[in-house]
Amino acid sequence: MTQIIKEGDDVLLYLSRKRTYLVKVESGKSFHTHKGYVQLENLIGKEYGSRLESSMGIEFVALKPAIRDHIFKVLRKTQITYPKDIALIVMFSGVGPGSRVVEAGTGTGALTSALAFYVKPTGRVTSYEVRSEFIETALKNLKRAGLAEYVEIKNKDVTQGIEEKEVDAVVLDMATPWLVISHAYSALKGSGSLVSFSPTIDQVVKTVEALQENGFVAVETIECLMRRMQIARGKTRPETLMTAHTGYITFARKAIVEH
Amino acid sequence: MTQIIKEGDDVLLYLSRKRTYLVKVESGKSFHTHKGYVQLENLIGKEYGSRLESSMGIEFVALKPAIRDHIFKVLRKTQITYPKDIALIVMFSGVGPGSRVVEAGTGTGALTSALAFYVKPTGRVTSYEVRSEFIETALKNLKRAGLAEYVEIKNKDVTQGIEEKEVDAVVLDMATPWLVISHAYSALKGSGSLVSFSPTIDQVVKTVEALQENGFVAVETIECLMRRMQIARGKTRPETLMTAHTGYITFARKAIVEH
Amino acid sequence: MTQIIKEGDDVLLYLSRKRTYLVKVESGKSFHTHKGYVQLENLIGKEYGSRLESSMGIEFVALKPAIRDHIFKVLRKTQITYPKDIALIVMFSGVGPGSRVVEAGTGTGALTSALAFYVKPTGRVTSYEVRSEFIETALKNLKRAGLAEYVEIKNKDVTQGIEEKEVDAVVLDMATPWLVISHAYSALKGSGSLVSFSPTIDQVVKTVEALQENGFVAVETIECLMRRMQIARGKTRPETLMTAHTGYITFARKAIVEH
Amino acid sequence: MTQIIKEGDDVLLYLSRKRTYLVKVESGKSFHTHKGYVQLENLIGKEYGSRLESSMGIEFVALKPAIRDHIFKVLRKTQITYPKDIALIVMFSGVGPGSRVVEAGTGTGALTSALAFYVKPTGRVTSYEVRSEFIETALKNLKRAGLAEYVEIKNKDVTQGIEEKEVDAVVLDMATPWLVISHAYSALKGSGSLVSFSPTIDQVVKTVEALQENGFVAVETIECLMRRMQIARGKTRPETLMTAHTGYITFARKAIVEH
Repeated sequence: MTQIIKEGDDVLLYLSRKRTYLVKVESGKSFHTHKGYVQLENLIGKEYGSRLESSMGIEFVALKPAIRDHIFKVLRKTQITYPKDIALIVMFSGVGPGSRVVEAGTGTGALTSALAFYVKPTGRVTSYEVRSEFIETALKNLKRAGLAEYVEIKNKDVTQGIEEKEVDAVVLDMATPWLVISHAYSALKGSGSLVSFSPTIDQVVKTVEALQENGFVAVETIECLMRRMQIARGKTRPETLMTAHTGYITFARKAIVEH
Repeated sequence: MTQIIKEGDDVLLYLSRKRTYLVKVESGKSFHTHKGYVQLENLIGKEYGSRLESSMGIEFVALKPAIRDHIFKVLRKTQITYPKDIALIVMFSGVGPGSRVVEAGTGTGALTSALAFYVKPTGRVTSYEVRSEFIETALKNLKRAGLAEYVEIKNKDVTQGIEEKEVDAVVLDMATPWLVISHAYSALKGSGSLVSFSPTIDQVVKTVEALQENGFVAVETIECLMRRMQIARGKTRPETLMTAHTGYITFARKAIVEH
Repeated sequence: MTQIIKEGDDVLLYLSRKRTYLVKVESGKSFHTHKGYVQLENLIGKEYGSRLESSMGIEFVALKPAIRDHIFKVLRKTQITYPKDIALIVMFSGVGPGSRVVEAGTGTGALTSALAFYVKPTGRVTSYEVRSEFIETALKNLKRAGLAEYVEIKNKDVTQGIEEKEVDAVVLDMATPWLVISHAYSALKGSGSLVSFSPTIDQVVKTVEALQENGFVAVETIECLMRRMQIARGKTRPETLMTAHTGYITFARKAIVEH
Repeated sequence: MTQIIKEGDDVLLYLSRKRTYLVKVESGKSFHTHKGYVQLENLIGKEYGSRLESSMGIEFVALKPAIRDHIFKVLRKTQITYPKDIALIVMFSGVGPGSRVVEAGTGTGALTSALAFYVKPTGRVTSYEVRSEFIETALKNLKRAGLAEYVEIKNKDVTQGIEEKEVDAVVLDMATPWLVISHAYSALKGSGSLVSFSPTIDQVVKTVEALQENGFVAVETIECLMRRMQIARGKTRPETLMTAHTGYITFARKAIVEH
């Protein structure tokens, strides 16, 4: 079905790979950039992917925001978990349509959005966040991405316990994941996935030790390096600069401890 | 809900990170490994994640196969697209629950399985494969992963055209992706995603040129390097050997060409 | 022998890993930084490695510039060949004390300095540079590093030929290395080394083809990625940003073509 | 000067990048490979770089072994420090013609050979090795590379002290480098370089802490990743497999502690 841009929709205005803008289409409003302003209402009734010209005659494309675009826009502020890491967290944890997932902490909701996107429409994400000042921002970001209905945010300290039981996956993006491993064990169903994202080696060592002490198996830690390429006949090469480290991702599966 | 292993279920027998076995649980059958044999029927009625001992007293864990496990088992034979690449292909293309996707070629169905897993239950994958000898294997792998109902495989040459229209994404894992770019443009809805996976730089350059000539924007090429870590207090370090290159992934979005 | 700082010596004032200054010690002169000024003449008669305080009470260390420090200071302006690449170029080419080397082009003299440092005192570097405006800068940099006497710079176009014969190595850091391969073959002694540094894949492919057509063997191309680590108990991790690509280095050896 | 192969010389027989053989040229001896045998005496009087045919008609090239070839041949057995790491150790430490260097431990002499190659003819390497069984092998390797005269091996435990004073660099490739840092400080001249190579993060953290406690500055830790490229028109790509980790290299400079 052709997708038509309506009043109130979000569009991703694309100028170049490094210049994209997530904006809401509203009648009578214009959006200003260093390449001139665009009349957003001209987009109403057009198909996603349509082009429009700025006041300076520069062409923009009105893309439909994908989950990665939402994540990028949210991450601009916190710059912790990157889309590349989120992609691996989601796939390697087995999270998919229908999964029940516990996450901590919510932060600005970037990883939460991704988890919600993949568990919908029948799954559910419960996200713990002890810092109440983050919750409003996270909710706003989830709403903007159309994903708030699949998420419950709990303003609780996950190191004190996880209330959910028999969940498919527990995903940790927090400073002290090792304090949550025994709670995660209790919350997971047998064979369920635990994933932890940490920037430093020291965090990883403590987390892996806690996993080994708490009955997890298939423990593995990886790091994902994403290299951008400049592709142009006669000028093809990797890009000069690279975000070389965001964090390590640790995966594990719950084995049942028999009594 | 606790998940109980039933007769006929697939389980992933876990011995170590490098030794896992995807086996069907059947009464009266045993499974032989270099660490002794296991009586699979003993698993019936137990929870996923349960442990069982081999005839040599070695412990195995009966994990529930996740999508990554299915992919790994399929890939053992072809070793083309790796789970790390599949994860990025899925997330960066925006494919999710409900998406309509065209893929080419099917191969043994590894990438097909991943796409089907994420579009279910309401989405659909149409996969083109010109080599008829692959189709049976792919179907068998899709059935084993419980994903066959979300996929249609067409024994057709995708370089001759794509029959679908208004699809959300076109995913190419084939030797000559540049021959399919104009067909992909016709098949995609406005703002839809194209993804192409290629091992060599030469393929990438031709594909990027075809994308630029055919009205695509937001063209970017990346390479994903996944590093495994050995984590143990006093012995922590990256692993010595690494699969350093599988392929480059190119992403693009369809912009509408006005007439 | 203890090394004492004398009037007129260069010292590398070290404040932090990212803040070092290459300065000449002169009586009556002070050196200004954002952390206050230092009286350089106070260093005269002290041992290299001594500390001195700035006017703001900040401590600097007066290090003796090593070859890498000279190279870094020179490279600040051109940012082409990096010390990591220079290190591999030198070792993998077999250049060492006594070697006779031809280089092109000279540029600002960074790679020239490194080659001169390793061939001294009995070896010699002949460096071709067609752009006369670079030669003065290169000579100044070589003099400052104390290496000018081991180098001859020729203001000639190396694509027109190499005058030297029976040299141990030819090192190319120029835009069109493939145009020099047959000249390099003539200049090298049997078994001698050719090294070429190029940022783009396209340059590398042309160069490797020229090497294969001109009787070279042991042709190999590598890329060196240098990752910096942040080491601190509890905070250990790779650094976030990385110069991910400078260029590819191609090595080859001359095999004798019999007539 | 054209270099002629003489009786008793070592040549590097080159078949392909992965098949090279370091052999001594002796009258009446033949060298057997899976591609047939070669009569080595046929090389006497020929120029280095000459080709010769095996009994099966396969062509070999008789290259003159470069320092990297010697190192590779030695490393085949121990596989610790790789040429890429040795290259960075040498350049980043400032070791060059005339340097006085202390090394520990000697091992099979790979790093020792490289250091000796660059300090010759006027410099000197003193290498500590507590395991007496390694010394004979190291001496044999140094002799074969023609570098024994620039090296003194001491069968002593370097953690008990370093006897040399005012040396230019101390290079550590041993299991417990942190136990040697205070001795290295005493042995180095002001501004001198310390380099330490360690496979694990835990070793690096202890070493960096010892450096910071003992008056060293400019402390930095790097990791060098060397990627091999497959270059062929239409098939250009990084190689699939990579030695992704050999070790971390830590560099530091001695600052004078005033009393």
